Amino acid sequence: MDFNELIGLEIVDVSEDEVVGRIVIDDRHLQPYGIVHGGVFCTMIETLASYGAATWAMSQGMFGAVGVHNSTDFIRSCRGGEVTARATPVHRGRSQQLWEVTVRGGDGRMVARGQVRLHNLTEPSPIGG
Amino acid sequence: MDFNELIGLEIVDVSEDEVVGRIVIDDRHLQPYGIVHGGVFCTMIETLASYGAATWAMSQGMFGAVGVHNSTDFIRSCRGGEVTARATPVHRGRSQQLWEVTVRGGDGRMVARGQVRLHNLTEPSPIGG
Amino acid sequence: MDFNELIGLEIVDVSEDEVVGRIVIDDRHLQPYGIVHGGVFCTMIETLASYGAATWAMSQGMFGAVGVHNSTDFIRSCRGGEVTARATPVHRGRSQQLWEVTVRGGDGRMVARGQVRLHNLTEPSPIGG
Amino acid sequence: MDFNELIGLEIVDVSEDEVVGRIVIDDRHLQPYGIVHGGVFCTMIETLASYGAATWAMSQGMFGAVGVHNSTDFIRSCRGGEVTARATPVHRGRSQQLWEVTVRGGDGRMVARGQVRLHNLTEPSPIGG
Repeated sequence: MDFNELIGLEIVDVSEDEVVGRIVIDDRHLQPYGIVHGGVFCTMIETLASYGAATWAMSQGMFGAVGVHNSTDFIRSCRGGEVTARATPVHRGRSQQLWEVTVRGGDGRMVARGQVRLHNLTEPSPIGG
Repeated sequence: MDFNELIGLEIVDVSEDEVVGRIVIDDRHLQPYGIVHGGVFCTMIETLASYGAATWAMSQGMFGAVGVHNSTDFIRSCRGGEVTARATPVHRGRSQQLWEVTVRGGDGRMVARGQVRLHNLTEPSPIGG
Repeated sequence: MDFNELIGLEIVDVSEDEVVGRIVIDDRHLQPYGIVHGGVFCTMIETLASYGAATWAMSQGMFGAVGVHNSTDFIRSCRGGEVTARATPVHRGRSQQLWEVTVRGGDGRMVARGQVRLHNLTEPSPIGG
Repeated sequence: MDFNELIGLEIVDVSEDEVVGRIVIDDRHLQPYGIVHGGVFCTMIETLASYGAATWAMSQGMFGAVGVHNSTDFIRSCRGGEVTARATPVHRGRSQQLWEVTVRGGDGRMVARGQVRLHNLTEPSPIGG
Protein backbone atom coordinates (compact mmCIF):
# COMPACT_ATOMS: atom_id res chain seq x y z
CA MET A 1 0.00 0.00 0.00
CA ASP A 2 1.39 3.40 -0.96
CA PHE A 3 0.21 6.88 0.08
CA ASN A 4 -2.26 7.27 -2.77
CA GLU A 5 -3.91 4.00 -1.79
CA LEU A 6 -3.86 4.95 1.88
CA ILE A 7 -5.92 8.04 1.22
CA GLY A 8 -8.16 6.37 -1.35
CA LEU A 9 -7.13 8.41 -4.37
CA GLU A 10 -8.37 6.83 -7.58
CA ILE A 11 -6.71 7.92 -10.81
CA VAL A 12 -9.39 8.11 -13.48
CA ASP A 13 -7.39 9.25 -16.47
CA VAL A 14 -3.72 9.98 -17.23
CA SER A 15 -2.09 11.55 -20.24
CA GLU A 16 0.72 14.03 -20.80
CA ASP A 17 -1.94 16.75 -21.25
CA GLU A 18 -4.40 15.99 -18.47
CA VAL A 19 -4.78 13.88 -15.36
CA VAL A 20 -8.06 13.29 -13.52
CA GLY A 21 -8.46 11.68 -10.09
CA ARG A 22 -11.06 11.43 -7.36
CA ILE A 23 -11.60 10.61 -3.71
CA VAL A 24 -14.84 9.57 -2.02
CA ILE A 25 -14.64 11.46 1.27
CA ASP A 26 -15.21 9.67 4.56
CA ASP A 27 -14.26 10.32 8.19
CA ARG A 28 -10.63 9.39 7.60
CA HIS A 29 -10.18 12.53 5.44
CA LEU A 30 -11.41 15.04 8.01
CA GLN A 31 -9.60 17.29 10.46
CA PRO A 32 -10.90 18.13 13.96
CA TYR A 33 -13.40 20.77 12.73
CA GLY A 34 -15.16 18.09 10.67
CA ILE A 35 -14.05 19.41 7.29
CA VAL A 36 -11.71 17.77 4.79
CA HIS A 37 -8.08 18.19 5.87
CA GLY A 38 -6.14 20.54 3.61
CA GLY A 39 -3.46 17.87 3.26
CA VAL A 40 -5.92 15.71 1.32
CA PHE A 41 -6.16 18.39 -1.36
CA CYS A 42 -2.41 19.07 -1.36
CA THR A 43 -1.87 15.33 -1.86
CA MET A 44 -4.36 15.03 -4.74
CA ILE A 45 -2.74 18.04 -6.39
CA GLU A 46 0.77 16.64 -5.88
CA THR A 47 -0.10 13.21 -7.24
CA LEU A 48 -1.99 14.38 -10.30
CA ALA A 49 0.63 16.92 -11.29
CA SER A 50 3.37 14.33 -10.80
CA TYR A 51 1.62 11.72 -12.94
CA GLY A 52 1.09 14.21 -15.76
CA ALA A 53 4.61 15.57 -15.59
CA ALA A 54 6.19 12.12 -15.45
CA THR A 55 4.09 10.98 -18.41
CA TRP A 56 5.20 13.95 -20.47
CA ALA A 57 8.86 13.63 -19.38
CA MET A 58 8.94 9.99 -20.43
CA SER A 59 7.33 10.86 -23.77
CA GLN A 60 10.35 13.12 -24.32
CA GLY A 61 12.90 10.42 -23.50
CA MET A 62 13.46 11.52 -19.92
CA PHE A 63 13.07 9.29 -16.87
CA GLY A 64 10.33 11.04 -14.93
CA ALA A 65 9.74 14.15 -12.86
CA VAL A 66 9.72 14.92 -9.17
CA GLY A 67 7.89 17.76 -7.40
CA VAL A 68 9.95 20.54 -5.83
CA HIS A 69 7.18 22.94 -4.78
CA ASN A 70 3.48 22.58 -4.05
CA SER A 71 1.33 25.67 -3.58
CA THR A 72 -2.30 24.97 -2.71
CA ASP A 73 -5.16 27.39 -2.00
CA PHE A 74 -8.20 26.22 -0.05
CA ILE A 75 -11.22 27.91 -1.57
CA ARG A 76 -14.25 26.41 0.17
CA SER A 77 -14.56 23.95 3.04
CA CYS A 78 -15.94 20.52 2.18
CA ARG A 79 -17.58 17.96 4.48
CA GLY A 80 -18.21 14.94 2.32
CA GLY A 81 -19.19 13.51 -1.03
CA GLU A 82 -16.86 12.91 -3.93
CA VAL A 83 -14.11 15.36 -4.84
CA THR A 84 -12.61 15.33 -8.31
CA ALA A 85 -9.32 16.89 -9.36
CA ARG A 86 -8.05 17.76 -12.81
CA ALA A 87 -4.45 18.63 -13.65
CA THR A 88 -3.26 20.47 -16.75
CA PRO A 89 0.19 21.74 -17.74
CA VAL A 90 1.07 25.42 -17.52
CA HIS A 91 4.63 24.94 -18.77
CA ARG A 92 6.62 21.89 -19.84
CA GLY A 93 10.26 22.83 -20.27
CA ARG A 94 13.61 21.12 -20.67
CA SER A 95 14.46 21.08 -16.96
CA GLN A 96 11.24 21.99 -15.15
CA GLN A 97 7.48 21.73 -15.50
CA LEU A 98 4.62 23.65 -13.90
CA TRP A 99 1.19 22.04 -13.59
CA GLU A 100 -2.05 23.51 -12.32
CA VAL A 101 -4.71 21.44 -10.57
CA THR A 102 -8.28 22.30 -9.60
CA VAL A 103 -10.34 20.26 -7.15
CA ARG A 104 -14.13 20.36 -7.23
CA GLY A 105 -16.82 18.98 -4.92
CA GLY A 106 -19.78 16.90 -5.98
CA ASP A 107 -21.73 20.06 -6.82
CA GLY A 108 -19.04 21.18 -9.26
CA ARG A 109 -17.85 24.09 -7.14
CA MET A 110 -14.11 24.60 -6.69
CA VAL A 111 -12.91 23.57 -3.23
CA ALA A 112 -9.15 23.86 -3.77
CA ARG A 113 -6.65 24.84 -6.42
CA GLY A 114 -2.94 24.44 -6.58
CA GLN A 115 0.14 24.27 -8.69
CA VAL A 116 3.19 22.06 -8.57
CA ARG A 117 6.66 22.83 -9.92
CA LEU A 118 8.51 19.68 -10.95
CA HIS A 119 12.09 18.90 -11.84
CA ASN A 120 12.60 16.60 -14.82
CA LEU A 121 14.73 13.53 -14.23
CA THR A 122 17.19 13.43 -17.11
CA GLU A 123 19.20 10.51 -15.78
CA PRO A 124 18.05 7.10 -14.57
CA SER A 125 17.31 6.89 -10.84
CA PRO A 126 18.80 10.15 -9.65
CA ILE A 127 16.66 9.81 -6.58
CA GLY A 128 16.99 6.05 -6.46
CA GLY A 129 18.51 3.88 -3.76
CA MET B 1 -10.11 8.01 12.82
CA ASP B 2 -9.28 11.41 11.31
CA PHE B 3 -6.67 12.29 8.67
CA ASN B 4 -3.86 12.91 11.14
CA GLU B 5 -4.40 9.45 12.64
CA LEU B 6 -4.67 7.89 9.18
CA ILE B 7 -1.21 9.08 8.27
CA GLY B 8 0.27 8.39 11.71
CA LEU B 9 1.08 11.98 12.66
CA GLU B 10 1.90 12.25 16.34
CA ILE B 11 1.72 15.70 17.92
CA VAL B 12 4.57 15.96 20.40
CA ASP B 13 4.08 19.47 21.70
CA VAL B 14 1.59 22.31 21.14
CA SER B 15 1.64 25.91 22.27
CA GLU B 16 0.75 29.24 20.71
CA ASP B 17 4.47 29.77 19.97
CA GLU B 18 5.56 26.35 18.72
CA VAL B 19 4.16 23.03 17.59
CA VAL B 20 6.20 19.85 17.13
CA GLY B 21 5.02 16.65 15.47
CA ARG B 22 6.50 13.50 13.98
CA ILE B 23 5.81 10.56 11.71
CA VAL B 24 7.59 7.23 11.62
CA ILE B 25 7.80 6.54 7.91
CA ASP B 26 6.68 3.20 6.48
CA ASP B 27 5.55 1.95 3.08
CA ARG B 28 2.16 3.65 3.39
CA HIS B 29 3.86 7.08 3.13
CA LEU B 30 5.70 6.43 -0.11
CA GLN B 31 4.93 7.34 -3.70
CA PRO B 32 5.77 5.10 -6.68
CA TYR B 33 9.48 6.12 -6.81
CA GLY B 34 9.91 4.76 -3.27
CA ILE B 35 10.35 8.15 -1.62
CA VAL B 36 8.04 9.85 0.85
CA HIS B 37 5.04 11.38 -0.94
CA GLY B 38 5.11 15.18 -0.93
CA GLY B 39 1.57 15.16 0.40
CA VAL B 40 2.83 13.70 3.68
CA PHE B 41 4.97 16.78 4.22
CA CYS B 42 2.22 19.18 3.11
CA THR B 43 -0.10 17.48 5.60
CA MET B 44 2.36 17.68 8.51
CA ILE B 45 2.93 21.36 7.70
CA GLU B 46 -0.81 22.05 7.46
CA THR B 47 -1.65 20.31 10.73
CA LEU B 48 1.13 21.82 12.81
CA ALA B 49 0.50 25.35 11.57
CA SER B 50 -3.23 24.92 12.18
CA TYR B 51 -2.74 23.66 15.74
CA GLY B 52 -0.45 26.56 16.60
CA ALA B 53 -2.67 29.16 14.97
CA ALA B 54 -5.83 27.80 16.60
CA THR B 55 -4.13 27.75 19.99
CA TRP B 56 -3.07 31.38 19.64
CA ALA B 57 -6.47 32.46 18.27
CA MET B 58 -8.27 30.89 21.21
CA SER B 59 -5.84 32.55 23.64
CA GLN B 60 -7.04 35.85 22.13
CA GLY B 61 -10.72 35.06 22.58
CA MET B 62 -11.29 33.91 19.02
CA PHE B 63 -12.74 30.55 18.03
CA GLY B 64 -9.91 29.02 16.02
CA ALA B 65 -8.18 29.39 12.67
CA VAL B 66 -8.48 27.66 9.32
CA GLY B 67 -5.81 27.40 6.62
CA VAL B 68 -6.34 29.26 3.35
CA HIS B 69 -2.98 28.65 1.64
CA ASN B 70 -0.26 26.04 2.01
CA SER B 71 3.06 26.51 0.24
CA THR B 72 5.52 23.63 0.65
CA ASP B 73 9.02 23.19 -0.76
CA PHE B 74 10.52 19.73 -1.02
CA ILE B 75 14.22 20.05 -0.24
CA ARG B 76 15.59 16.50 -0.12
CA SER B 77 13.99 13.16 -0.86
CA CYS B 78 13.48 10.85 2.10
CA ARG B 79 13.01 7.05 2.13
CA GLY B 80 12.36 6.16 5.74
CA GLY B 81 13.08 6.73 9.40
CA GLU B 82 11.41 9.32 11.56
CA VAL B 83 10.62 12.80 10.29
CA THR B 84 10.02 15.62 12.74
CA ALA B 85 8.34 18.94 11.99
CA ARG B 86 8.43 22.17 13.95
CA ALA B 87 6.06 25.11 13.38
CA THR B 88 6.65 28.68 14.52
CA PRO B 89 4.65 31.87 13.88
CA VAL B 90 5.83 34.46 11.34
CA HIS B 91 2.88 36.79 11.91
CA ARG B 92 -0.18 36.60 14.17
CA GLY B 93 -2.62 39.37 13.25
CA ARG B 94 -6.21 40.31 13.92
CA SER B 95 -7.63 38.55 10.87
CA GLN B 96 -4.85 36.32 9.53
CA GLN B 97 -1.81 34.39 10.69
CA LEU B 98 1.26 33.11 8.88
CA TRP B 99 3.19 30.13 10.25
CA GLU B 100 6.40 28.55 9.00
CA VAL B 101 7.17 24.86 9.37
CA THR B 102 10.39 22.93 8.81
CA VAL B 103 10.54 19.15 8.47
CA ARG B 104 13.74 17.26 9.21
CA GLY B 105 14.76 13.65 8.75
CA GLY B 106 16.32 11.42 11.37
CA ASP B 107 19.77 12.81 10.53
CA GLY B 108 18.61 16.36 11.29
CA ARG B 109 18.75 17.50 7.66
CA MET B 110 15.85 19.54 6.29
CA VAL B 111 13.65 17.50 3.95
CA ALA B 112 10.80 19.99 3.47
CA ARG B 113 9.76 23.46 4.50
CA GLY B 114 6.51 25.29 4.14
CA GLN B 115 4.30 28.04 5.29
CA VAL B 116 0.58 28.23 5.91
CA ARG B 117 -1.62 31.32 5.84
CA LEU B 118 -4.63 30.99 8.14
CA HIS B 119 -7.83 32.93 8.60
CA ASN B 120 -8.88 33.56 12.21
CA LEU B 121 -12.39 32.44 13.12
CA THR B 122 -13.92 35.39 14.96
CA GLU B 123 -17.38 33.88 15.27
CA PRO B 124 -18.45 30.47 16.55
CA SER B 125 -18.72 27.76 13.87
CA PRO B 126 -18.46 29.86 10.72
CA ILE B 127 -17.43 26.72 8.93
CA GLY B 128 -19.80 24.52 10.91
CA GLY B 129 -22.70 22.42 9.67
CA MET C 1 4.24 59.84 -9.95
CA ASP C 2 3.31 56.50 -8.38
CA PHE C 3 4.98 53.09 -8.79
CA ASN C 4 2.92 52.03 -11.78
CA GLU C 5 3.92 55.22 -13.60
CA LEU C 6 7.55 54.81 -12.52
CA ILE C 7 7.76 51.45 -14.24
CA GLY C 8 5.69 52.50 -17.25
CA LEU C 9 2.74 50.17 -16.69
CA GLU C 10 -0.20 51.13 -18.86
CA ILE C 11 -3.62 49.80 -17.87
CA VAL C 12 -5.47 48.96 -21.08
CA ASP C 13 -8.75 47.65 -19.70
CA VAL C 14 -10.32 47.21 -16.25
CA SER C 15 -13.47 45.43 -15.20
CA GLU C 16 -14.46 43.22 -12.29
CA ASP C 17 -13.92 40.19 -14.57
CA GLU C 18 -10.70 41.05 -16.38
CA VAL C 19 -7.83 43.53 -16.29
CA VAL C 20 -5.30 44.01 -19.08
CA GLY C 21 -2.08 46.01 -18.87
CA ARG C 22 1.19 46.37 -20.74
CA ILE C 23 4.75 47.62 -20.51
CA VAL C 24 7.07 48.52 -23.36
CA ILE C 25 10.38 47.14 -22.13
CA ASP C 26 13.49 49.30 -22.13
CA ASP C 27 16.82 49.27 -20.28
CA ARG C 28 15.22 50.49 -17.05
CA HIS C 29 13.38 47.16 -16.68
CA LEU C 30 16.43 44.91 -16.93
CA GLN C 31 18.55 43.23 -14.29
CA PRO C 32 22.33 42.73 -14.59
CA TYR C 33 22.07 39.68 -16.93
CA GLY C 34 20.26 41.85 -19.49
CA ILE C 35 16.87 40.20 -19.03
CA VAL C 36 13.70 41.73 -17.61
CA HIS C 37 13.86 41.87 -13.79
CA GLY C 38 11.44 39.45 -12.13
CA GLY C 39 10.15 42.32 -10.02
CA VAL C 40 8.66 43.90 -13.15
CA PHE C 41 6.45 40.86 -13.65
CA CYS C 42 5.56 40.62 -9.94
CA THR C 43 4.54 44.28 -10.07
CA MET C 44 2.38 43.89 -13.18
CA ILE C 45 0.71 40.89 -11.60
CA GLU C 46 0.15 42.71 -8.30
CA THR C 47 -1.31 45.82 -9.94
CA LEU C 48 -3.65 44.03 -12.32
CA ALA C 49 -4.99 41.67 -9.69
CA SER C 50 -5.49 44.60 -7.30
CA TYR C 51 -7.37 46.67 -9.86
CA GLY C 52 -9.69 43.81 -10.70
CA ALA C 53 -10.29 42.84 -7.08
CA ALA C 54 -10.93 46.44 -6.01
CA THR C 55 -13.35 46.93 -8.89
CA TRP C 56 -15.30 43.83 -7.91
CA ALA C 57 -15.23 44.68 -4.17
CA MET C 58 -16.63 48.14 -4.87
CA SER C 59 -19.34 46.64 -7.08
CA GLN C 60 -20.39 44.67 -3.97
CA GLY C 61 -20.54 47.71 -1.72
CA MET C 62 -17.11 47.18 -0.18
CA PHE C 63 -14.32 49.76 -0.11
CA GLY C 64 -11.59 48.02 -2.06
CA ALA C 65 -9.12 45.18 -1.70
CA VAL C 66 -5.47 44.93 -0.74
CA GLY C 67 -3.00 42.17 -1.67
CA VAL C 68 -1.72 39.87 1.07
CA HIS C 69 0.25 37.35 -1.01
CA ASN C 70 1.86 37.41 -4.45
CA SER C 71 3.18 34.19 -5.97
CA THR C 72 4.88 34.62 -9.35
CA ASP C 73 6.54 32.03 -11.59
CA PHE C 74 9.06 33.12 -14.20
CA ILE C 75 8.55 30.92 -17.23
CA ARG C 76 10.82 32.33 -19.95
CA SER C 77 13.39 35.10 -19.89
CA CYS C 78 12.55 38.20 -21.90
CA ARG C 79 14.89 40.89 -23.26
CA GLY C 80 12.65 43.50 -24.82
CA GLY C 81 9.53 44.33 -26.77
CA GLU C 82 6.11 44.76 -25.31
CA VAL C 83 4.79 42.52 -22.53
CA THR C 84 1.06 42.23 -21.92
CA ALA C 85 -0.59 40.89 -18.79
CA ARG C 86 -4.15 39.69 -18.29
CA ALA C 87 -5.78 39.12 -14.90
CA THR C 88 -8.88 37.01 -14.25
CA PRO C 89 -10.57 35.98 -11.00
CA VAL C 90 -10.18 32.48 -9.57
CA HIS C 91 -12.35 33.16 -6.52
CA ARG C 92 -14.21 36.24 -5.29
CA GLY C 93 -15.46 35.66 -1.74
CA ARG C 94 -16.87 37.65 1.12
CA SER C 95 -13.53 38.27 2.83
CA GLN C 96 -10.86 37.29 0.29
CA GLN C 97 -10.27 37.10 -3.44
CA LEU C 98 -7.80 35.12 -5.55
CA TRP C 99 -6.80 36.38 -8.99
CA GLU C 100 -4.59 34.75 -11.59
CA VAL C 101 -2.44 36.75 -14.02
CA THR C 102 -0.54 35.64 -17.11
CA VAL C 103 2.14 37.77 -18.78
CA ARG C 104 3.04 37.25 -22.43
CA GLY C 105 5.77 38.65 -24.65
CA GLY C 106 5.29 40.23 -28.06
CA ASP C 107 5.33 36.79 -29.69
CA GLY C 108 2.41 35.65 -27.52
CA ARG C 109 4.46 33.21 -25.47
CA MET C 110 4.00 33.16 -21.71
CA VAL C 111 6.92 34.78 -19.86
CA ALA C 112 5.48 34.83 -16.34
CA ARG C 113 2.39 33.77 -14.43
CA GLY C 114 1.24 34.53 -10.95
CA GLN C 115 -1.57 34.75 -8.53
CA VAL C 116 -2.47 37.27 -5.87
CA ARG C 117 -4.57 36.69 -2.76
CA LEU C 118 -6.37 39.86 -1.66
CA HIS C 119 -8.22 40.90 1.47
CA ASN C 120 -11.46 42.79 0.91
CA LEU C 121 -11.76 46.14 2.68
CA THR C 122 -15.16 46.08 4.33
CA GLU C 123 -14.73 49.37 6.19
CA PRO C 124 -13.63 52.77 4.90
CA SER C 125 -9.87 53.44 5.11
CA PRO C 126 -8.72 50.52 7.27
CA ILE C 127 -5.28 51.05 5.85
CA GLY C 128 -5.59 54.83 5.82
CA GLY C 129 -3.49 57.40 7.68
CA MET D 1 19.97 52.62 -15.52
CA ASP D 2 18.66 49.17 -14.61
CA PHE D 3 15.56 48.21 -12.59
CA ASN D 4 17.29 48.24 -9.22
CA GLU D 5 18.50 51.79 -9.87
CA LEU D 6 15.07 52.83 -11.16
CA ILE D 7 13.45 51.90 -7.88
CA GLY D 8 16.31 53.23 -5.74
CA LEU D 9 17.39 49.91 -4.25
CA GLU D 10 20.78 50.24 -2.54
CA ILE D 11 22.70 47.02 -1.85
CA VAL D 12 24.41 47.43 1.50
CA ASP D 13 26.14 44.07 1.84
CA VAL D 14 26.56 40.95 -0.31
CA SER D 15 28.01 37.58 0.52
CA GLU D 16 27.08 33.98 -0.24
CA ASP D 17 25.48 33.76 3.22
CA GLU D 18 23.61 37.06 3.50
CA VAL D 19 22.55 40.03 1.42
CA VAL D 20 21.25 43.33 2.83
CA GLY D 21 19.61 46.13 0.85
CA ARG D 22 17.45 49.17 1.49
CA ILE D 23 15.15 51.69 -0.13
CA VAL D 24 14.25 55.15 1.11
CA ILE D 25 10.54 55.34 0.33
CA ASP D 26 9.10 58.30 -1.55
CA ASP D 27 5.98 58.95 -3.64
CA ARG D 28 7.33 56.93 -6.57
CA HIS D 29 7.01 53.71 -4.53
CA LEU D 30 3.35 54.10 -3.61
CA GLN D 31 0.18 52.64 -5.07
CA PRO D 32 -3.13 54.52 -5.29
CA TYR D 33 -4.08 53.90 -1.62
CA GLY D 34 -0.94 55.77 -0.54
CA ILE D 35 0.91 52.71 0.74
CA VAL D 36 4.06 51.12 -0.66
CA HIS D 37 3.26 49.03 -3.76
CA GLY D 38 3.65 45.31 -3.15
CA GLY D 39 5.83 45.12 -6.25
CA VAL D 40 8.50 47.16 -4.45
CA PHE D 41 8.82 44.42 -1.84
CA CYS D 42 8.70 41.61 -4.42
CA THR D 43 11.50 43.37 -6.29
CA MET D 44 13.71 43.84 -3.21
CA ILE D 45 13.18 40.18 -2.34
CA GLU D 46 13.96 39.05 -5.90
CA THR D 47 17.12 41.13 -6.17
CA LEU D 48 18.58 40.23 -2.79
CA ALA D 49 17.92 36.51 -3.19
CA SER D 50 19.42 36.62 -6.70
CA TYR D 51 22.58 38.40 -5.56
CA GLY D 52 23.12 35.91 -2.74
CA ALA D 53 22.40 32.89 -4.90
CA ALA D 54 24.63 34.11 -7.75
CA THR D 55 27.44 34.83 -5.31
CA TRP D 56 27.23 31.33 -3.88
CA ALA D 57 26.89 29.69 -7.32
CA MET D 58 30.02 31.46 -8.56
CA SER D 59 31.91 30.41 -5.42
CA GLN D 60 31.12 26.82 -6.47
CA GLY D 61 32.41 27.26 -10.01
CA MET D 62 29.00 27.84 -11.56
CA PHE D 63 28.05 30.85 -13.66
CA GLY D 64 25.24 32.38 -11.63
CA ALA D 65 21.62 31.76 -10.72
CA VAL D 66 18.30 32.96 -12.04
CA GLY D 67 14.98 33.14 -10.17
CA VAL D 68 12.18 30.79 -11.20
CA HIS D 69 9.63 31.52 -8.47
CA ASN D 70 9.00 34.45 -6.12
CA SER D 71 6.50 34.08 -3.28
CA THR D 72 5.98 37.24 -1.23
CA ASP D 73 3.67 37.86 1.74
CA PHE D 74 2.68 41.41 2.65
CA ILE D 75 2.53 41.59 6.45
CA ARG D 76 1.91 45.25 7.29
CA SER D 77 1.25 48.27 5.11
CA CYS D 78 3.97 50.90 5.01
CA ARG D 79 3.70 54.59 4.07
CA GLY D 80 7.24 55.91 4.15
CA GLY D 81 10.64 55.91 5.79
CA GLU D 82 13.42 53.49 5.05
CA VAL D 83 12.78 49.79 4.45
CA THR D 84 15.59 47.28 4.88
CA ALA D 85 15.66 43.74 3.54
CA ARG D 86 17.86 40.83 4.53
CA ALA D 87 18.25 37.62 2.53
CA THR D 88 19.55 34.31 3.88
CA PRO D 89 19.79 30.87 2.26
CA VAL D 90 17.33 28.10 3.13
CA HIS D 91 18.88 25.57 0.75
CA ARG D 92 21.80 25.73 -1.67
CA GLY D 93 21.83 22.64 -3.85
CA ARG D 94 23.48 21.40 -7.00
CA SER D 95 20.74 22.56 -9.36
CA GLN D 96 18.50 24.86 -7.31
CA GLN D 97 18.65 27.25 -4.38
CA LEU D 98 15.98 28.60 -2.04
CA TRP D 99 16.47 31.93 -0.27
CA GLU D 100 14.30 33.64 2.30
CA VAL D 101 14.07 37.42 2.60
CA THR D 102 12.50 39.59 5.31
CA VAL D 103 11.75 43.29 4.82
CA ARG D 104 11.44 45.60 7.83
CA GLY D 105 10.34 49.21 8.21
CA GLY D 106 12.23 51.95 10.05
CA ASP D 107 10.69 50.81 13.34
CA GLY D 108 12.09 47.31 12.88
CA ARG D 109 8.69 45.68 12.32
CA MET D 110 8.34 43.19 9.48
CA VAL D 111 6.43 44.62 6.52
CA ALA D 112 6.96 41.81 4.01
CA ARG D 113 8.57 38.41 3.74
CA GLY D 114 9.25 36.22 0.79
CA GLN D 115 11.22 33.42 -0.68
CA VAL D 116 12.78 32.91 -4.09
CA ARG D 117 13.60 29.62 -5.79
CA LEU D 118 16.55 29.94 -8.17
CA HIS D 119 18.01 27.75 -10.86
CA ASN D 120 21.80 27.52 -10.92
CA LEU D 121 23.47 28.36 -14.22
CA THR D 122 25.93 25.56 -14.85
CA GLU D 123 26.95 26.70 -18.31
CA PRO D 124 28.09 30.11 -19.51
CA SER D 125 25.32 32.40 -20.76
CA PRO D 126 22.45 29.95 -20.97
CA ILE D 127 20.13 32.91 -20.87
CA GLY D 128 22.46 35.10 -22.91
CA GLY D 129 21.85 36.77 -26.26
